Amino acid sequence: MPSRKRAAATGSGRRIPVGVLGATGTVGQRFVQLLERHPWFEVIEVMASDQSAGRSYAEAIGSRWKLATAIPPDVAKLRVRGPGDPLQARILFSALDASVAGDLEQEYARRGHLVSSNARNHRMDPKVPLVIPEVNRDHMKLLDLQPYRNGGGLVTNPNCSTIVIAMALAPIHRSFGIDAAIVTTFQAASGAGYPGVPSLDILGNVVPFISGEEAKIESETQKILGRIGPKGIAHAEFPVSALCHRVPVVDGHQMAISLRLETRATRRRILDAWEGFRPLRKLGLPSAPEAPIEAKVEEDRPQPRLDADRAGGMGVTVGRLRPCNVLEWKFEALGHNTIRGAAGAAILNVEILVRDERI
Amino acid sequence: MPSRKRAAATGSGRRIPVGVLGATGTVGQRFVQLLERHPWFEVIEVMASDQSAGRSYAEAIGSRWKLATAIPPDVAKLRVRGPGDPLQARILFSALDASVAGDLEQEYARRGHLVSSNARNHRMDPKVPLVIPEVNRDHMKLLDLQPYRNGGGLVTNPNCSTIVIAMALAPIHRSFGIDAAIVTTFQAASGAGYPGVPSLDILGNVVPFISGEEAKIESETQKILGRIGPKGIAHAEFPVSALCHRVPVVDGHQMAISLRLETRATRRRILDAWEGFRPLRKLGLPSAPEAPIEAKVEEDRPQPRLDADRAGGMGVTVGRLRPCNVLEWKFEALGHNTIRGAAGAAILNVEILVRDERI
Amino acid sequence: MPSRKRAAATGSGRRIPVGVLGATGTVGQRFVQLLERHPWFEVIEVMASDQSAGRSYAEAIGSRWKLATAIPPDVAKLRVRGPGDPLQARILFSALDASVAGDLEQEYARRGHLVSSNARNHRMDPKVPLVIPEVNRDHMKLLDLQPYRNGGGLVTNPNCSTIVIAMALAPIHRSFGIDAAIVTTFQAASGAGYPGVPSLDILGNVVPFISGEEAKIESETQKILGRIGPKGIAHAEFPVSALCHRVPVVDGHQMAISLRLETRATRRRILDAWEGFRPLRKLGLPSAPEAPIEAKVEEDRPQPRLDADRAGGMGVTVGRLRPCNVLEWKFEALGHNTIRGAAGAAILNVEILVRDERI
Amino acid sequence: MPSRKRAAATGSGRRIPVGVLGATGTVGQRFVQLLERHPWFEVIEVMASDQSAGRSYAEAIGSRWKLATAIPPDVAKLRVRGPGDPLQARILFSALDASVAGDLEQEYARRGHLVSSNARNHRMDPKVPLVIPEVNRDHMKLLDLQPYRNGGGLVTNPNCSTIVIAMALAPIHRSFGIDAAIVTTFQAASGAGYPGVPSLDILGNVVPFISGEEAKIESETQKILGRIGPKGIAHAEFPVSALCHRVPVVDGHQMAISLRLETRATRRRILDAWEGFRPLRKLGLPSAPEAPIEAKVEEDRPQPRLDADRAGGMGVTVGRLRPCNVLEWKFEALGHNTIRGAAGAAILNVEILVRDERI
Repeated sequence: MPSRKRAAATGSGRRIPVGVLGATGTVGQRFVQLLERHPWFEVIEVMASDQSAGRSYAEAIGSRWKLATAIPPDVAKLRVRGPGDPLQARILFSALDASVAGDLEQEYARRGHLVSSNARNHRMDPKVPLVIPEVNRDHMKLLDLQPYRNGGGLVTNPNCSTIVIAMALAPIHRSFGIDAAIVTTFQAASGAGYPGVPSLDILGNVVPFISGEEAKIESETQKILGRIGPKGIAHAEFPVSALCHRVPVVDGHQMAISLRLETRATRRRILDAWEGFRPLRKLGLPSAPEAPIEAKVEEDRPQPRLDADRAGGMGVTVGRLRPCNVLEWKFEALGHNTIRGAAGAAILNVEILVRDERI
Repeated sequence: MPSRKRAAATGSGRRIPVGVLGATGTVGQRFVQLLERHPWFEVIEVMASDQSAGRSYAEAIGSRWKLATAIPPDVAKLRVRGPGDPLQARILFSALDASVAGDLEQEYARRGHLVSSNARNHRMDPKVPLVIPEVNRDHMKLLDLQPYRNGGGLVTNPNCSTIVIAMALAPIHRSFGIDAAIVTTFQAASGAGYPGVPSLDILGNVVPFISGEEAKIESETQKILGRIGPKGIAHAEFPVSALCHRVPVVDGHQMAISLRLETRATRRRILDAWEGFRPLRKLGLPSAPEAPIEAKVEEDRPQPRLDADRAGGMGVTVGRLRPCNVLEWKFEALGHNTIRGAAGAAILNVEILVRDERI
Repeated sequence: MPSRKRAAATGSGRRIPVGVLGATGTVGQRFVQLLERHPWFEVIEVMASDQSAGRSYAEAIGSRWKLATAIPPDVAKLRVRGPGDPLQARILFSALDASVAGDLEQEYARRGHLVSSNARNHRMDPKVPLVIPEVNRDHMKLLDLQPYRNGGGLVTNPNCSTIVIAMALAPIHRSFGIDAAIVTTFQAASGAGYPGVPSLDILGNVVPFISGEEAKIESETQKILGRIGPKGIAHAEFPVSALCHRVPVVDGHQMAISLRLETRATRRRILDAWEGFRPLRKLGLPSAPEAPIEAKVEEDRPQPRLDADRAGGMGVTVGRLRPCNVLEWKFEALGHNTIRGAAGAAILNVEILVRDERI
Repeated sequence: MPSRKRAAATGSGRRIPVGVLGATGTVGQRFVQLLERHPWFEVIEVMASDQSAGRSYAEAIGSRWKLATAIPPDVAKLRVRGPGDPLQARILFSALDASVAGDLEQEYARRGHLVSSNARNHRMDPKVPLVIPEVNRDHMKLLDLQPYRNGGGLVTNPNCSTIVIAMALAPIHRSFGIDAAIVTTFQAASGAGYPGVPSLDILGNVVPFISGEEAKIESETQKILGRIGPKGIAHAEFPVSALCHRVPVVDGHQMAISLRLETRATRRRILDAWEGFRPLRKLGLPSAPEAPIEAKVEEDRPQPRLDADRAGGMGVTVGRLRPCNVLEWKFEALGHNTIRGAAGAAILNVEILVRDERI
């Protein structure tokens, strides 16, 4: 990134113009909401489906706006662009549906845009970084292997559940080595978008199935916790087993996790690993929480209603660390699925790219 | 049991008189509801706390009746007995709170009553049967070791989660041997009684803690799946690890289970083990389901709302059997926590005692 | 109806064959469920959309079956007919979507079928009976004004909210005359069908709008409580004002009602009017509850969870009758929206036609 | 208020010390949360029951803290005072339970404290102001009639439902005169405190009864909309009828309201009355929303999940204004019950007292 722009971004000058792809969906709305008062970025373009194209963002979204804050007035009046329309902003945040994200994101990258995507399509591509800045910021080097020119590129963040798991596991993996992990999820309805989960399926109920989710958690975790070498990422080799469930919660994915470690740990040392995990401290990234992981001491935490919004929804909260009779340790982890698990994750990925002067 | 009484019980004659201890609580209400049209048993006595004693059951229960059917008229007018009051019925079903069940149940057993208890107090006593009739009916022999005379005795059923787990594991354990099991629970609010879980804790939320529950699941499962010998029960030795959660569901405990087996199995053979598990068939027990375990083939079942009421709430439903990357197999299980997991379990325990002519 | 058929229907002989139109939706499923063990009727045909046609009912419905009981085996294997396909059964229950019900129901009536419809399309047609048997059974005479031959005809039941309101108002209107009524509804999610209400709209929320519902309640109530004369129905003239809301409840529409009466009443006399309202007693209709209206005395009833299933879901429950500072009286009413408010209503309409020898 | 203090309060100097009575309950927690970053006030004392007294606030509250933000560190370490203990702060916010508020609040007023109370006990006392600053700020003059010396006094805010109703009605009453109002409420669980509503009562349910609530709404609304004269408040004379319900919502009381007016209005003029209602504009009160009432144009708003948090929970949102067949107009109103309806209301009352130099 040219130093002038960087100065602007991180100082008090003009904000960097950005666009949002798939701006009318649940995650697209979160991008628009989170970027409203972002000190570095300013939404100047929104793209959505052909049905929305040509209308103002407020008209296009109509009654589908499902957040508790109002549509930002500056974005409300933007005219929605259609799929493939030329865009001005170099940085694009993508909340595109997987059915179209694959090609569209590549197309924009070819045109010189840096696409920070929440879509699943390119996450497991060996040349595409799948990054949580606190965990594997160095994987951003994969950008150098990408074929795009003129500053184009493609960066992804993990699935909304994986992000919580990988965050909670990373400090443990570094300190003790993980040998195996079993994760049972309690996932919020907002993770399925809108209209998403029919109310008759989830009111007073649990649905023990989310299509494709278990495979994503199992493979993405291994990539994120892998090591980057000259030829790419060597995935972590420990097996992950996921058992996914939808529960009647609006926001916040909760997880019950059991682990076997490679080396001996104690409760105190694991807690220390979590609490000492502050790799982005002092970088001044607007979306990075002071404490990315907080370990609660109360016996009944974390809980979605009380903990999902911590640190503006960017904090992961863990708790109930105790021995597991079958593996070695078990605990709970929680994160906000549409902020830390989606839009906020993609924004933080660009923040770290700016800070590391990769864009 | 004298043959005259037995004939009466199993034929068309008079029903066996029974009493309900702790009759005003959530489980006590289920006893009263389930026994309303029971072909063998008839509630002639109800016992509750000193506050309720002396009033009619309907008055004592007031607005705390929380079931969707009306209070049975015959029970509504019974005068509530207080703790320790003399009772006529030989058979007593106990829904007593654990704070008082320990002594009171023993006292009634000493007086010659056969107490079928849902309380946790005596479950792990080496001389007290902890029984699911389909699973370990032979453990009823422990009654012979008890010190009570004149027909007195004490029988228990497992914790509301354990019962689902032990039912789902039993056929697999018999056929393949279980080496280890991890269970994550999604437990309904009715499991905590009334007033129980405050709504502010559970509306749109998950609470990852239920006091004492994990230890109960871990130990009770081993006792139930143990083998009886001349000296008592040799507990099953495989470790069980439980991770317990309360979810915003009214009735129906769901569980996500991972297993490692001692011998090799296939998906087909495990399904066969479940489907072939009909040990009570042909015994004509009123509360025993035709199929105690049903294996669903749909990818999103079982679910509390759709499956908890199967077989009058006495059926356990399993589904989503698939390989686990860490252990060997994983699947879902579900049962109705206040019927199969509590009152219905205690009733079925007495039914099998009657059929086996132990009382 | 020929006496032979009637005998069969009401005696112990063969059941009358019936078909279900729109059989795969939420209300269609209720028809199939409620008719499973119906003593008079037997489902021999199911019709659904072109996508479903040609497949077995079980295949066509797939994972959209949302009831807590299993698909009746006899219906599960029926081959689904498409819209307009010839049908054998004279009696057809219609759960068709309003987008197609208008023409299709008329077409089947022209072909000689008696169509008992839950769709809104023909309810306000001056020649079509809009009937609750307990309330305006005499409106069935409108069938004589219909142009259909060979036994064809069209009968409708009210909207799921209207049915509860009209039931609760009818005895009061007869005894005291109603001058005005304001109704605020608390409507369950199942009233919107499947997928229906998105979970993000209703989890932990209230939605104060249901498209078209208020107008339906206001006009249908006047027709039902109107008087039939030689030229048709003279609608009741008192104004009804409805304020409709969706709440996070699965089944059971609750209503808060305020009334002004034409003549003086007392609390006791209104309660007597409700309790004495048993116009179908002694007719032996299988779906008619012994007490169509039950007035609860507890201060916090009725409630959906505790009262919607009363009398197999066919009972309306009222409570909290007290003076209103603005009009004269206010109270609560509740009914099961997909049983008494939909499928059960259409079935009861045919039962009364059979009993009254109109078919 | 001495000008030095006032300057401090409204300028950048030191904050005014305040205390919170009943600080550990649901409303007490809101006081502590809302005051954390309040520009004028600083919590220096907390009072709770004898069980809590002597412990730090964090210890006393234990796992009963039910808000999604953390306990403010400065308050967490305050030592909890017991009932009647001497307090330093002149201004006390009271979230006392009604069982003790009556006497305790008077006692503190006698000692020279200005008590701003959310308790119901003194609301209808003719000498106690029952105030919503936007509506009846002039009622604060009643303070002059109180017997307390040395700056002591007692001010109350309305019940959590009344506040929403009175806010929504006030501009209409001023412009057109209200002749009658019927209000049906949909009240959130947090309104009942903690543990409050048992989950078994409210999960997937509606409870049509809240003890004492209807009478409070009916009388408090008349007092608030009354006129102050030399002898006190002349209550508004139009009748209010309330029908109260608890629904499975965490925060946000929704209301369906029907009105008859004294003079002719149009939809446009009523909307203008709401939108033009900004009586506190330019006063710079920290808790006063820019737009105290927002009229939504979408057909399905307001809704608790989307609108309760508007303006930090201090905004009332209305919508769906349309003609009523029975009275004249009907509409929806919504407010946050523990912020605008409780703690925030009491704080705003003191803000206006400071601004008006009454304290």
